[in-house]
Amino acid sequence: MKKVFILGSTGSIGVNCLSVIENLSEDFEVVGLTVNSNTELLHEQVKKYNPKFVVVKDESASQNIKDKLPTECELLTSEKGLLKASSELDYDIFVGAMVGFAGLAPTIEAVKRGKRIALANKETLVVAGELVTNLCRENGSEILPVDSEHSAIYQCLIGENLNEVEKLVLTASGGPFWDKDKSFFENATVEEALDHPNWKMGSKITIDSATMINKGLEVIEAHWLFGLTVKKIDVVIHPQSIIHSMVQFVDGSIKAQLGLPDMKLPIQYALTFPKRVENNFGRTNLPSIGSLTFFEPDLNKFECLKLAFDALTEGGAAPCILNAANEVAVSKFLQKEIRFSHIPLLIKKALNSVENIFSQDLATIFECDRKTREYVQGLI
Amino acid sequence: MKKVFILGSTGSIGVNCLSVIENLSEDFEVVGLTVNSNTELLHEQVKKYNPKFVVVKDESASQNIKDKLPTECELLTSEKGLLKASSELDYDIFVGAMVGFAGLAPTIEAVKRGKRIALANKETLVVAGELVTNLCRENGSEILPVDSEHSAIYQCLIGENLNEVEKLVLTASGGPFWDKDKSFFENATVEEALDHPNWKMGSKITIDSATMINKGLEVIEAHWLFGLTVKKIDVVIHPQSIIHSMVQFVDGSIKAQLGLPDMKLPIQYALTFPKRVENNFGRTNLPSIGSLTFFEPDLNKFECLKLAFDALTEGGAAPCILNAANEVAVSKFLQKEIRFSHIPLLIKKALNSVENIFSQDLATIFECDRKTREYVQGLI
Repeated sequence: MKKVFILGSTGSIGVNCLSVIENLSEDFEVVGLTVNSNTELLHEQVKKYNPKFVVVKDESASQNIKDKLPTECELLTSEKGLLKASSELDYDIFVGAMVGFAGLAPTIEAVKRGKRIALANKETLVVAGELVTNLCRENGSEILPVDSEHSAIYQCLIGENLNEVEKLVLTASGGPFWDKDKSFFENATVEEALDHPNWKMGSKITIDSATMINKGLEVIEAHWLFGLTVKKIDVVIHPQSIIHSMVQFVDGSIKAQLGLPDMKLPIQYALTFPKRVENNFGRTNLPSIGSLTFFEPDLNKFECLKLAFDALTEGGAAPCILNAANEVAVSKFLQKEIRFSHIPLLIKKALNSVENIFSQDLATIFECDRKTREYVQGLI
Repeated sequence: MKKVFILGSTGSIGVNCLSVIENLSEDFEVVGLTVNSNTELLHEQVKKYNPKFVVVKDESASQNIKDKLPTECELLTSEKGLLKASSELDYDIFVGAMVGFAGLAPTIEAVKRGKRIALANKETLVVAGELVTNLCRENGSEILPVDSEHSAIYQCLIGENLNEVEKLVLTASGGPFWDKDKSFFENATVEEALDHPNWKMGSKITIDSATMINKGLEVIEAHWLFGLTVKKIDVVIHPQSIIHSMVQFVDGSIKAQLGLPDMKLPIQYALTFPKRVENNFGRTNLPSIGSLTFFEPDLNKFECLKLAFDALTEGGAAPCILNAANEVAVSKFLQKEIRFSHIPLLIKKALNSVENIFSQDLATIFECDRKTREYVQGLI
């Protein structure tokens, strides 16, 4: 029986992960759940999955559930509780499904214990890819990507030799705006940006998909996961989101992984790898889909994607600055305090102004993240 | 240095194979070539590749080259010479690139010696799949498929577990007639049938592509190569011939192999496997291709494809009967002695009339092949 600890159990990935585990209940059990503040859904999940511990990061929210937990379920709170759960409590698989920079520290604790990391939180690798991948090697911890793109690449690389990869091709739906004019971005509303054509996801990642920085973050993530230089990573727009990504080898052969846009598949794969387990998820019927189309992304229009490539090329903490500036900008956009077109402007200013550092020390990364947020807040 | 013996060196696969080996000249050398009767091209090839032996199957044609060969190059003739070369001469890789049933006996000799078989001659597995795959197991011989579809599946299965395959999906260009009305078949000309949209191949296989029996033969070949039942093998029409085939796993994940329609890629893979070797073959640019489309094949229209599924379901020598009847019918169609629409009629009659046998003895298979040809000849 594999014990699963899900960080961010009430988000889109967390909820899907629980539903996947229901189908795998002979081999997997939920032992721990964490939420930021959604104690209502957490309470439902506790009743259903009976975990041994839960963490509520927001201390005041934790009061809402304190008296509703079964006695055998331990309650931890705050960032400290989250780190304690990751570093001390009993689990086999760490599912990193929380959003943003907050995922980094607890993931590092799990890596240090040599756990399997099912990683949906791409920021962990974006801001501290070198540190985290080094720690993985040292501690025998294995990262199984949960992003559909990286899961696709992982699957295409099984049995292949990384030295024989010519390039990775990450596919991007292009989000709701891929075929809009750049002039449209000036007045794009929050509602329009949240209307993703294929994927039902949280609001942060949906906005990231509309600016296409999400694909940029994935390029950085792919760089660290698969150890390939930025020149060997391409992005292609594929609006149907059926081909989840591809690997082109030195002989010119391309392998692709396909499936419906349903996160349950990469989540299950990350849990059960190297096994594949039968399920009742929808199957892909290509004749009924009819046509798969492909376009070059316009980097002049999707400046955020270009900025991500630039940050990866620059190296050091540039991806950390990019990510922090983006997190602030997206949150301000969702609060309707800035325009959609301001997001790349703020990121660009941060990359130009916040001092880049080339140390992979965790404290330095935290400091760089903090400084960037402060800087971008000051611009608004 | 790997020594390569190419059976059928002047056909489309043979010529491509020689061009692939030029790019691999540090690790591969041509030691043997065989032709049916095209001694003119064989002579050019001998001058260029300097093989240690050649076989000319047509004895009278062999007279044309006899005095032109360098003294160190051995000349063998007739079926007997072909079998002698396969069973006695020195080589490491046997490239089965000849057309039709004629490929069976020499391939079996190579299998018995435990050689690597780069197999383009699908009839070998169609007519004697059980015998050949059993011999492979007994003699440690490995078949590397050269058909683009089977090479695609082979590549998609690397590192995967055959027990976790839900189905294979063979893609078919559909040939020149896939979107024509069935009524069109009545008067389809040889020239129209030979006008394949994507692949430049020999005339037999191009007609097989127009009737779609080629895909049916590939279904049978896939059954033997990968050990999956007929119910686990699907065909999808994909007119662009970019996705060469796919594997769907029990978790719903699909892996596909893509590339330009160029036989050099699967040929090289069959030679260099498990390595992939850099080359200057064209690369696939999906945005410039734009769109990949998919359709269900119409088995009512493409009766030959249905007959192949039926023959595989029936088992025994039914695929051998199907293949022999088709070889006669196609040759008669190419000679303009029968209509395009007669091809499935002749095959159906043969399947209904020639006695099926369930022994996997080579002599019995030969006898069944002979009887079928005689029967179909008698109908015309």
